Amino acid sequence: MSLIVQKFGGSSVADANKLRNVARIITDTYQRGNDVVVVLSAQGDTTDDLIEKAKELNPHASKREMDMLLSNGEQISISLCAMCIESMGYQAISLTGWQAGMLTDSSYSNARIKRVRTERIQKELDKRKIVLVAGFQGINKYDDITTLGRGGSDTSAVALAAALHADLCQIYTDVDGVYTADPRSVTGAKKLEEITFDEMLELASLGAQVLHNRSVEMAKRYNVNLEVLSSFSGNPGTKVKEVVKTMEKTHVSGVAKDKNVARIALVGLADQPGIAFKIFSLLAKENINVDIILQSIGRDGSKDISFTVARGDSQRAREVMEENKEVIGCKSVELNDQIAKISVVGAGMANNAGVACKMFEALFSAGININMISTSEIKVSVLVDERDAERAVQAVHDRFFSEFGSNG
Amino acid sequence: MSLIVQKFGGSSVADANKLRNVARIITDTYQRGNDVVVVLSAQGDTTDDLIEKAKELNPHASKREMDMLLSNGEQISISLCAMCIESMGYQAISLTGWQAGMLTDSSYSNARIKRVRTERIQKELDKRKIVLVAGFQGINKYDDITTLGRGGSDTSAVALAAALHADLCQIYTDVDGVYTADPRSVTGAKKLEEITFDEMLELASLGAQVLHNRSVEMAKRYNVNLEVLSSFSGNPGTKVKEVVKTMEKTHVSGVAKDKNVARIALVGLADQPGIAFKIFSLLAKENINVDIILQSIGRDGSKDISFTVARGDSQRAREVMEENKEVIGCKSVELNDQIAKISVVGAGMANNAGVACKMFEALFSAGININMISTSEIKVSVLVDERDAERAVQAVHDRFFSEFGSNG
Repeated sequence: MSLIVQKFGGSSVADANKLRNVARIITDTYQRGNDVVVVLSAQGDTTDDLIEKAKELNPHASKREMDMLLSNGEQISISLCAMCIESMGYQAISLTGWQAGMLTDSSYSNARIKRVRTERIQKELDKRKIVLVAGFQGINKYDDITTLGRGGSDTSAVALAAALHADLCQIYTDVDGVYTADPRSVTGAKKLEEITFDEMLELASLGAQVLHNRSVEMAKRYNVNLEVLSSFSGNPGTKVKEVVKTMEKTHVSGVAKDKNVARIALVGLADQPGIAFKIFSLLAKENINVDIILQSIGRDGSKDISFTVARGDSQRAREVMEENKEVIGCKSVELNDQIAKISVVGAGMANNAGVACKMFEALFSAGININMISTSEIKVSVLVDERDAERAVQAVHDRFFSEFGSNG
Repeated sequence: MSLIVQKFGGSSVADANKLRNVARIITDTYQRGNDVVVVLSAQGDTTDDLIEKAKELNPHASKREMDMLLSNGEQISISLCAMCIESMGYQAISLTGWQAGMLTDSSYSNARIKRVRTERIQKELDKRKIVLVAGFQGINKYDDITTLGRGGSDTSAVALAAALHADLCQIYTDVDGVYTADPRSVTGAKKLEEITFDEMLELASLGAQVLHNRSVEMAKRYNVNLEVLSSFSGNPGTKVKEVVKTMEKTHVSGVAKDKNVARIALVGLADQPGIAFKIFSLLAKENINVDIILQSIGRDGSKDISFTVARGDSQRAREVMEENKEVIGCKSVELNDQIAKISVVGAGMANNAGVACKMFEALFSAGININMISTSEIKVSVLVDERDAERAVQAVHDRFFSEFGSNG
C-alpha cells in the first residue's frame, strides 16, 4: 500500500462532469489499496470571477482581503469533490489550507509554505478516508488566510507529498506529460517518459508552462517523485525524478520557447569596476528579476551590458536605468521587447559540446539571426526576433528530434 | 463611544452597488466615533447557487461537506465588503467564523453557538479597525466548519453583541422595521417604534419573518438591545427591548398571518388518561413540532384532539397517527392544510380581557368562520380557511389600528 498525493488543476474540476471524472480517478487509486490525499484548484473561472468582483469594488484591495476572497475557490472545489466521492460510496473529507496544517509566512498573495502540520490529515487517513485539501492556500501565524501565488496548488501538492513522505505525487493537468516541445505548435513533438528535476526546472522557467518552478524546486529539495499526467486521456504521463534511467541516451530533453522576454541594452558604459554591481542592485531594489546578462566590449574602450527581464517589468527597468544614467555612467538605454528566447534543455548536455553547435547550425540553416546567447550546465538559450520564434523552435526541434536528425 | 454590531442580510449585499451602500452605513456609524462589528450574510443567490451545484453531484451530500461548501458565501461577502470599506479610506478586516471565535456544537447545518472567543475581534477593535464577521458559520471542537441553519446570521450578530457587551445590535433588512401587520398586504399597517422581546418572539413564530426566533431568544436571554431597520430607506427602525416605554398605551402591537400551518384532527378518541401523552410523544420522536393543541368532547363520551404542525411535517404527522391508530385508540385521522393562523400580539394584552373579544367580533363582522382558538399571555391566535386569510388580517388590523377603531 502506497500513499499517493494527486493534484487536479482548475480545468480538470471545471464542472460536474469533470468533477465526476476526477472522482473516478481518485477512487480508482484508492480502490487499488492506496492512501490518497488530493489537492484541488478552484473550478475553471471561479478565481477570475472573484477577482472581477473585487476589482469592481476596489482595484487596489489589500492583499490580505484578496487572499480571504480567493481562498473560497479551492474550498468550493474540495467540498463539491468530497460530495461526489461520497455519492460513489467512499468516505471522503475536505480540509481547507488551515485545517490541513499548511503553515505559511505572511506574504499575502505570494506566501511561502513554512511547515505542514500533518496530524489532521494523518488522522483522517488512519480512518481510511480520502482526504481532499484546498490547494493554493495556507494560514500564517496570525491565523489569517494566505494564498501561495502562481502555481500555488502544485506547490501545495508537493509540500504535502514531502511532509507526508508520499510515495508519489501526481500532477494531473490538461496535457498528458512533458513534451520535447509544445505539441500545439511544433510538429513532431514527443512525450518524454522521464525527465530530471533540473531539466524540468529549466523547461518551466523557459515557458513550458507544465509545472511551476516553485513546486519542482521543492520536489527536488525533498526528493518527491513527481508525475505529470492528463486527467482526460488516461495515458501514462512523464515522471520527474532526481536521476532518470534514460539519461545517457537522450542528451536533449526538450526545446522551449519563451516570449515573455524583453532585452535592455546599456550602451557606452565606462570600463570601470563596480558598474555591473550598481546596475543590478538598482534592479534588485525594484524587485525586477534579471535573466540573461551579457557584457561586451563596445567602441572606444567603453563597454555594453545587455540583460533580459520579463516584459511586465521592462518599462520600469528602462525607467530605472534612465533615471540613474549618470550614476551608472552610460550613454544610452535601449529596450527591445520584440524578442523571444529559444532554449534546448538536457541533463546530459554538459558532457556533450556538440549541442550548442547543433542548435546554432539549425538556426543558421533556417536563416534566423541570433541576438544573444546564454548557456548553463543543462541548457543553451538564444534570443531571436519574436517573429522568428515559431520557426526557430521547429528548426531546432527537427534537428534534435526528427527521425532524420540525430539526438544530441 | 459605543460598540455597535450591525448585521446585513443577503439582499442588502447582493451586488457591488448594494455593498457600497452597506459600506457607507458602516463607515457613517464608525465616523460618529463608534466601534463597529459587522455581520454579513452571503450575497443574494450565492447560497442557492452553491446548493444547486452540490445537488447536481450528490443530492444526499453529508452535512459536514455542505457546511464546508456553504460557508464560502459569507466569506466572499465579508472580504468584498472589507475591500469596499478600504476603498473609502477606512481600515477594515474580515474574519471567518472560526477566526472570529464562533465556537459551536457539531450539529452540522443547524449548529448551536456554545461560546464566542472574542480576543481576536477585541484586538482588531483596539487597532480601530472595522471588523467584518462571516455570519451563519462557526467551528466545532474538531476544527470543522459548521453552519447555524435558518436565521443563522441574525443569531451570529446577537451572539457577538452579547459576547462583546455591545451597546446596540442593529439588524438591517429589506423592511424598515416591525409593522402592526405585513405592509405588503395590509392597508394601514403602521411601523412600531418599539416592541418587547416576547412580542417579537410571538410575531416571528407567527410568520412575521422579520427576525428569526433563535436570535430574539438569545437577545432576550442576554438582554441585547436590538434594532430592526432597513439598509435602503435610512429611516429609524423598530427597537426590540425587554420593556418598552409605550407598553401601557398600546395593548396590541401587531397582527400576523402564518400560512405554514396544517391541522390534524384525531376523531373519536376513548376518554382515557394518557392518550395525549401517547400522541405527542410519537410526534416528538419524529421531531415534529406541534403548535396549537385543542381537546374537545366528541360524541358518545369519546373526545377529539386537534393540533397544528408546519405544512412540511403534515404528511409525516398524519402517517405516524395512522400507523398508531390502534395504540392511540382513535377512529379517524383528518388532515386539513388549507388553513391559516391569524394572531394578534401584545404584551399589554393579559390585563385586557377585551382583546380576544374584539378580534372575534372583527372576524364575525367580516363573515369569517373561526376554526380553532388558542391564547397565551401575549397573543390570541385563530385558525381560519386559507382563502379568508388576507381578509381576516385586514379586518382584525382595521379593528385595532385604523383611525376609526380604538387600540386595545
